[in-house]
Parts: sequence; structure tokens; C-alpha cells
Amino acid sequence: MSEPASESVLQRPARSADRAQRGSAGSARLSLNQATIKYADLPTALRVTRDAGIEAVGLWREPVAAVGLPTAAAMVADSGLRVSSLCRGGFVTARDEHQRRAALDENRRAIDETATLAAAAAPGSAPVLVLVAGGLPEGDRDLPAARARAADAVGALVDDAAAAGVVLAIEPMHPMYAADRGVISTLGQALDVAEQFPAATVGVVVDTFHVWWDPQLAGQVRRAGPRIASYQVCDWITPLPPDALLARGMMGEGHVDFPAVTRLVTDAGYAGDVEVEIFHQEVWDADPLDVAHRTVKAFDAHVGL
Amino acid sequence: MSEPASESVLQRPARSADRAQRGSAGSARLSLNQATIKYADLPTALRVTRDAGIEAVGLWREPVAAVGLPTAAAMVADSGLRVSSLCRGGFVTARDEHQRRAALDENRRAIDETATLAAAAAPGSAPVLVLVAGGLPEGDRDLPAARARAADAVGALVDDAAAAGVVLAIEPMHPMYAADRGVISTLGQALDVAEQFPAATVGVVVDTFHVWWDPQLAGQVRRAGPRIASYQVCDWITPLPPDALLARGMMGEGHVDFPAVTRLVTDAGYAGDVEVEIFHQEVWDADPLDVAHRTVKAFDAHVGL
Repeated sequence: MSEPASESVLQRPARSADRAQRGSAGSARLSLNQATIKYADLPTALRVTRDAGIEAVGLWREPVAAVGLPTAAAMVADSGLRVSSLCRGGFVTARDEHQRRAALDENRRAIDETATLAAAAAPGSAPVLVLVAGGLPEGDRDLPAARARAADAVGALVDDAAAAGVVLAIEPMHPMYAADRGVISTLGQALDVAEQFPAATVGVVVDTFHVWWDPQLAGQVRRAGPRIASYQVCDWITPLPPDALLARGMMGEGHVDFPAVTRLVTDAGYAGDVEVEIFHQEVWDADPLDVAHRTVKAFDAHVGL
Repeated sequence: MSEPASESVLQRPARSADRAQRGSAGSARLSLNQATIKYADLPTALRVTRDAGIEAVGLWREPVAAVGLPTAAAMVADSGLRVSSLCRGGFVTARDEHQRRAALDENRRAIDETATLAAAAAPGSAPVLVLVAGGLPEGDRDLPAARARAADAVGALVDDAAAAGVVLAIEPMHPMYAADRGVISTLGQALDVAEQFPAATVGVVVDTFHVWWDPQLAGQVRRAGPRIASYQVCDWITPLPPDALLARGMMGEGHVDFPAVTRLVTDAGYAGDVEVEIFHQEVWDADPLDVAHRTVKAFDAHVGL
């Protein structure tokens, strides 16, 4: 661990001063999703998050695994940060029974990690595991069947999640990822699955990038209400970059009307942290502390909290 | 005009023999959309369509304009082909009143062209003008307002279309084009607009590329019923190519379950021509006659007619 406990104490006054200087309460709910500073390891991610005056972090399983869960939990505890979610479980659309069982086991490990990390983190942390359904199996064109398998998998994981006090947050993915990443394509479809299970254990993610285009967005966010387990923001930029996976831009750089979506989500009752999750090569290539500072500014300027 | 009238007569027996050889009735309803052989001018497009044994063509305004409407109509008449649609009108989301009026006037010209071309073409032709809504105006993030303007524009064109005997076919565009190309993103949303007007004058396009991912597809195709004014097919390929506009692949090369969608469309009562519309650099770079032959093969093998 590169982060002595005392440093978090030393940082806090600076962070508060920083916030007071900015004169904004909005970013008190900002959480920096680790994917935004993808190349930073866990201790670096926690440090720059804190150093930028951000109070919460969204973690990813891979950098947690790189230091090991107990060490990661200690680092998170030491950081003083809240954890707003763990990304990500899911990928449960395999037809093959062996692959399907392996995926469920992997998700059970992710559930345990979510519980451990949220318990170690600061009060107000959310034991939320983000689930991405997964795409069509190779050569398979039966989308309804893949969707049914994804729903079944949520059912197979509900008891484990409930026992661990973890919320499974089904993330609808933009329809352009339906073939190769996530067969759950709209908030309404995610809710159709979530509502088969108790709201305390199965919720949904509202990610502006994935849902901003949806003509049914207002109604489905209202419908979601207490099922909203995570609110993630980033912008839809055009032209789409050559790698469509890296089309997630900093807020303000694209076409998303953040205040409108934030109002829907807030009116639906969501009061948790708001994650900034950006996949963008230029952002990844920049200094992570600079990105964290930039994120705070863009959040304050555009998200409408 | 490079196409003497006698050639179409000479070609017909060859075409029939070709069809008999293939032993398939499915491609009797195949229409080659000109965009699939984008670099061919109108006489070339008509010739290769016929030479490949295809009986119908979907036209684009630009190659028609390149020869002039009267010449284009004569060429089409001479070809013996049916015309299944004219692409495309729409692009009516401007906020500026002057731009909006100019767009409506442009659409009125497109309506007249549609009527002229369909009347000149072989019996069974469809006076269908495909409408693409257009994207968000530069710097504008108000998607609901842009959508409302698109709906208003359809209303402003309905009487002109009815007077010309033309069907305005609203094409929902894949949500990945919502910002910069088409703010009407789902079949359901297109129907919400179309149903405000008589079914004889305002319909919808079902294009597999744009709608294949939609969890509400079956219900919305059923709902569409006689509103289906055009059925277009091409595949969704992954990984998406660097230019996401060119992600439309030949049937069988991607993830779309064509027989399932074709069944929905057929069960909904659609009995018209089925356009193959592919935007793909490799297809565009190939010899247009080869592409036309390839299209017939892929159509017979995959579309499920």
C-alpha cells in the first residue's frame, strides 16, 4: 500500500477548502468511476480522486484484483472515500451450460467483492454491483433467447446478492452494443427484468450515454423510481470515434441534455452518488489528476445537480 | 440515355432463365436500393439491376437529379423495373424558420419526383418517399423539441403527399444516429407520428439495421400493419467499422435474424418489394454487377422470403 493513513487526514482540509472555493454543492455527489482514469492503479485512483476533492469512487474489479481484495478494502477504507459501485458483473448470455455456470460463479465472487468494498468504505457507500448482460454468443442470432438467459441469470443470483446485502444493478447498454456487449438495450427492458425481483436487491443503472436517445426515457425513469441503483454520466460525442467503445465524452462535449436527465432521475427519488464514467482515449492518455480536476469542473458546469 | 429500349426486351428472357435456374421465388420481391451500388450512375444502376435478374430498384434523389427527372423517368420506364421507393426526404429538424421552410419545399420536390418515377416504372411500383428526420441542430441538446419539429413537418407535408398519391414513409434510425442524422429512433416512435395521419399517406420503414435490436420490435411491427410502406434489409456487422455510417453489411455477414424479422413483417401484411440497402465501403468499391449478383444470392440464402 503506497498510501499512509495520515495522508487522508492531511488531505481533508485541502479538499474542503477546494470545495468551498468552487462554491458548488453539486459535486458533493460526484463519484469518479475508475474507468475514467483507466490506466491508474487502485492506489493512484484513490489518491487522485481525493486530491481533486472528490468524495466517492466507482471501482472496477480488475484493479481491485491486481492488489487483492483485502488490500483493496484496506486502501479504500484508508482513502476515506465512499464507494458508489463495483463494475462489473454480468456477461451471462452463454448458451453452453459449463460457461453459464462459470459466469454465475464469477458473479458470485463479484457480489462478495461488492459487499466487502462497500463495507470497508466511508459511510454512504452503496453495495451496488453493475451488471452488463453480455452479447450474442458467437454465430448466434437469437436475440430474444439471449435476453431470456440474461434474465434467468439475474434470478439465479438474487439470493446470493440478498444474502450479501448487495444490489444487482442491471445496466441497459446502448443498442449499438446489442450484438457484442449487452443484449439489454433499454431502461424499460432492464426494468422488465428487475421488477421480477425485490427492489432492495435488483435495480437498474441509468447511464446517460446508453439511454439519452430513448423516446421513452422520462416514463421509464419515473417507473424505475427506487430501482435506480446508480446514475452514471458522460456525453455522447459525434462523430463517433473509430472505436465506438470509446465514444463516451466529458460532459459538455456532446449532445446530452444532462440537466433534463438529472431532473428526471432526481424527481424519481435517486439521491445517491453520481458517477462519471468516460471511455475515451484522449482522457485515458491524460494525467489522471488532471482528468479528475477536469471531471469536477465539467460535473459542476453541466450535470445540473 | 445509354440504354436503348430494345435491350430491356432482350434482357428479359435471360432474367427469367436466371430466376428459374436459381429455383427461388423469394427474390422475385427483391429490390436493389441504389445506395448498395453507390458509385453507379442511374443508367448503370438500372442495367446491373436488370442484368442480375432483379425486378425492382430503390432510387436515390441525387443520381436521379444527375440526369434530370424527365430523363430519369424515361430510363426507369425503359428498364422495365419496378420502383420500390425514393430515398430520401426529411431532414426537417431545423429550428430556424427559413431553413425549415426550405426543407419543406425540398420535400415537396421529392414528393413530386416520387410520384413521377413510380408512375413511369413498371406496374407494382410503390410511390413511397423515405423520410429521415434529421438530427439535432448544431449546439442544440433539446431532443424532444427536435422530435416535435419532425412530427410537425410530416403534418405540413401530408396534404401535398396525398394530392400526389405519395406515401411518406418515416424511417426510424438506429439510436446511434439520434444526434446527427435521425431523431426518430424506434419503430414505436415513428408510428406515434404516423398514426396522427391517414394510413394511405403516412407509413413507416422497417429497416433491419435500424430496428433489429429493439425489444419491442414484434409488437411494434404488428402495430404497424398496413403502415409498413417499405421493408429494407441489411445486416448489423461487428466490430463496427471506423465510420459507423458504413456498418451496414450484406445479409448473412452479421447478427440479424432475418427470417424472424421477415416473418413479423409478412405476418403484419406487408407484401411489397424488399429493398437491400447496404452502406459498406468494400461493397461500394466492388463491381456493381458483381454486387447485384451477390445481393441476389444473399437475399435468397438469408432473408427468409
